[in-house]
Amino acid sequence: MNYSDVFSTWRDLHKTEWTSYTRHPFVERIGDGTLPKSAFLNYLRQDYIFLKHFSRAWGLAIAKSSNITEMHTCSKVVHALLDEEIKLHIEFCNSEGISTDELEKTNEMHQNLAYTRFVLDAGFSGDFLDLMAALAPCVLGYGEIGKRLGASQYSSVYEKWITTYAGKDYQSLCVEVGTLIDNAVLTRLGGNYTSLGKFRDLSQKFKIATLLEKNFWEMTNI
Amino acid sequence: MNYSDVFSTWRDLHKTEWTSYTRHPFVERIGDGTLPKSAFLNYLRQDYIFLKHFSRAWGLAIAKSSNITEMHTCSKVVHALLDEEIKLHIEFCNSEGISTDELEKTNEMHQNLAYTRFVLDAGFSGDFLDLMAALAPCVLGYGEIGKRLGASQYSSVYEKWITTYAGKDYQSLCVEVGTLIDNAVLTRLGGNYTSLGKFRDLSQKFKIATLLEKNFWEMTNI
Amino acid sequence: MNYSDVFSTWRDLHKTEWTSYTRHPFVERIGDGTLPKSAFLNYLRQDYIFLKHFSRAWGLAIAKSSNITEMHTCSKVVHALLDEEIKLHIEFCNSEGISTDELEKTNEMHQNLAYTRFVLDAGFSGDFLDLMAALAPCVLGYGEIGKRLGASQYSSVYEKWITTYAGKDYQSLCVEVGTLIDNAVLTRLGGNYTSLGKFRDLSQKFKIATLLEKNFWEMTNI
Amino acid sequence: MNYSDVFSTWRDLHKTEWTSYTRHPFVERIGDGTLPKSAFLNYLRQDYIFLKHFSRAWGLAIAKSSNITEMHTCSKVVHALLDEEIKLHIEFCNSEGISTDELEKTNEMHQNLAYTRFVLDAGFSGDFLDLMAALAPCVLGYGEIGKRLGASQYSSVYEKWITTYAGKDYQSLCVEVGTLIDNAVLTRLGGNYTSLGKFRDLSQKFKIATLLEKNFWEMTNI
Repeated sequence: MNYSDVFSTWRDLHKTEWTSYTRHPFVERIGDGTLPKSAFLNYLRQDYIFLKHFSRAWGLAIAKSSNITEMHTCSKVVHALLDEEIKLHIEFCNSEGISTDELEKTNEMHQNLAYTRFVLDAGFSGDFLDLMAALAPCVLGYGEIGKRLGASQYSSVYEKWITTYAGKDYQSLCVEVGTLIDNAVLTRLGGNYTSLGKFRDLSQKFKIATLLEKNFWEMTNI
Repeated sequence: MNYSDVFSTWRDLHKTEWTSYTRHPFVERIGDGTLPKSAFLNYLRQDYIFLKHFSRAWGLAIAKSSNITEMHTCSKVVHALLDEEIKLHIEFCNSEGISTDELEKTNEMHQNLAYTRFVLDAGFSGDFLDLMAALAPCVLGYGEIGKRLGASQYSSVYEKWITTYAGKDYQSLCVEVGTLIDNAVLTRLGGNYTSLGKFRDLSQKFKIATLLEKNFWEMTNI
Repeated sequence: MNYSDVFSTWRDLHKTEWTSYTRHPFVERIGDGTLPKSAFLNYLRQDYIFLKHFSRAWGLAIAKSSNITEMHTCSKVVHALLDEEIKLHIEFCNSEGISTDELEKTNEMHQNLAYTRFVLDAGFSGDFLDLMAALAPCVLGYGEIGKRLGASQYSSVYEKWITTYAGKDYQSLCVEVGTLIDNAVLTRLGGNYTSLGKFRDLSQKFKIATLLEKNFWEMTNI
Repeated sequence: MNYSDVFSTWRDLHKTEWTSYTRHPFVERIGDGTLPKSAFLNYLRQDYIFLKHFSRAWGLAIAKSSNITEMHTCSKVVHALLDEEIKLHIEFCNSEGISTDELEKTNEMHQNLAYTRFVLDAGFSGDFLDLMAALAPCVLGYGEIGKRLGASQYSSVYEKWITTYAGKDYQSLCVEVGTLIDNAVLTRLGGNYTSLGKFRDLSQKFKIATLLEKNFWEMTNI
């Protein structure tokens, strides 16, 4: 599970926070199928709103790109979010009796708002790297969770969720995003990036976004 | 207490939320002096961080202004925040034994982060009006709270806080900001602004910012 | 040629500017094949840089969207620009002996820079509508030019350029963008939008972008 | 004339461009008084529009600051621009028979628009450093020009302009901005900043802004 060197550095710098997010009881109970359905549906409803703002942030990343390769990867992520991940969400919710209309009317919870607006402000106020640092925990953390659960003896209850993030498409997107981040950091900050104040700022953004991911799991009592 | 017609409209559209913010127990106990000092100091520490992001948002408002009058008022607010309000905070905290250095090292709580990043994203993603709608609850709500408490039989415990916001300087800033908002809405959306979808979006932003203000009081258990 | 009501209104408000752009000698000589090849190649080189910044602006439009329908259309335009229009440019330039590397090294001319940065600032400083008003002249003007030349007795010299913009794909993209703009204006500003100050600001942005398009043709002496 | 180490590095990297801007005939003829009055007035009219957008950019710099010291300096520059430099412009123009109303109605020339929108996009798309690199040529170049002309046997014709930029207030603002830039670069990119790709990007922005300054002098035929 090494999508990127920079990502590995960030994760290792904030091990406690990273574990509290990626090994959260909410995650573990998706794996063993003991998560109450109502909690899962509440999460999906909030995640629908989250994904819209997250797609906005990846759209912003296109605007903040320095070259056409960066633009291509970011555009690909927008496409994956809007045309695949959100679509899956809607279908899944529909199949569980939540209509698209009801989904659209869901009230955004404060933990959700805190996370997405933090990412968007990091992006608007900073440069491409600041945005990537704030986006990384979600994209790559879900990749890591998916891969781990997918390789475990997971319950069939939330199989579809698990196989989406464990699946080849999502995993190869993570590899692409990891490469994007590594290249972006290397071309801008050079090989000794870990010594720079700019990198410490990026790590701080990564850490906060990680904690906001943890908070996201805690929106619903389980 | 009528700083602005547009503000009055927003406030009346969201009475419950507005009351839950401006008549919050935290506020009432500042007035009667029963708020625990530790709660007040925790609030001040967080508010220091808040004011920095809030100043950033008013700086952004300069960038989003359409004319020199708007720019002047926004620059005046930045000045009032950076050179007066934040300075008072630092002095007050220092006098309570919290050093400037300690203040700088305060960890930002999620409720704080949620509010400021919501305002900044509203501003970056929208136009001058969107930013004003998200900024109004704080500036004008504090004016309203200050005026009400200042006219009451308030306790001397938090007198300095009360007289700052009840004082002539802060109250006249509120009148200026109210006029800024009225003019900005009228010149852009015309006299029938309440019928427009754009105005409904603005009201929604005002409402969310109001709820995030209420949340801000609730960061500290009292 | 009526991609959108709002677009027609803008165009009619600025007829002289619109004609000076869409009936520019550079355009007419693409049609009759008398444009010197060197002028066309210089235009293509600059247009490659233009398209990158233009794609950035459409990425920004995703970030500034209010709903998922707007996001979908903007993402589609980014895709059309990055994966089709820019690709065609590169292929065409390559076939004319300009390598991709040479294309990447082209110096951006000031007229080019003026136009793209105006669009990007309009977008960053304003809301979704401000961005659309600045983007419209390029997208829909090329649609109009393509349609007109495509229906004329055009020379075969620049046939590929003409048939790209006259073609079904590009024309249907114009219809989609036109619908996007109409819906965006109606839901935000209502049916009487032409009377609002906000709409006058949008028209002004449309006008300036139109003049900057005209300037773009004049980068190369013909 | 060494406001800042980073500035000196940028200037030395782009000597030809820097000289073409700071030793432009327009500048020299301000010094010896041979610049036609009509050219000077046209410049002042355009500069009024320029200063508004430039103030917007410094407002944005407040929003992009990382700490309260940066915010203070940027706020001070906004104040100097809005309350001093623009005011001087208006007074001077008024004394020359150009009313404030006429000033407000001046059409923005493309060279003017190119420069300000380039700066604003650099700021919106990048981080604090990108914005500083795009802002530096104007602030510090005028400081350098003012100091040089002020120390020369200048003609009395444009004395007021010369003494404004040669004066203590403006010169000490330049020193503050220079210090701001040095500190901002050092804390983010460290002492070996010249070796980083990020710094090469900043230098490129400095260079383009310098050329756009040169272009600004050439708006009016002399």
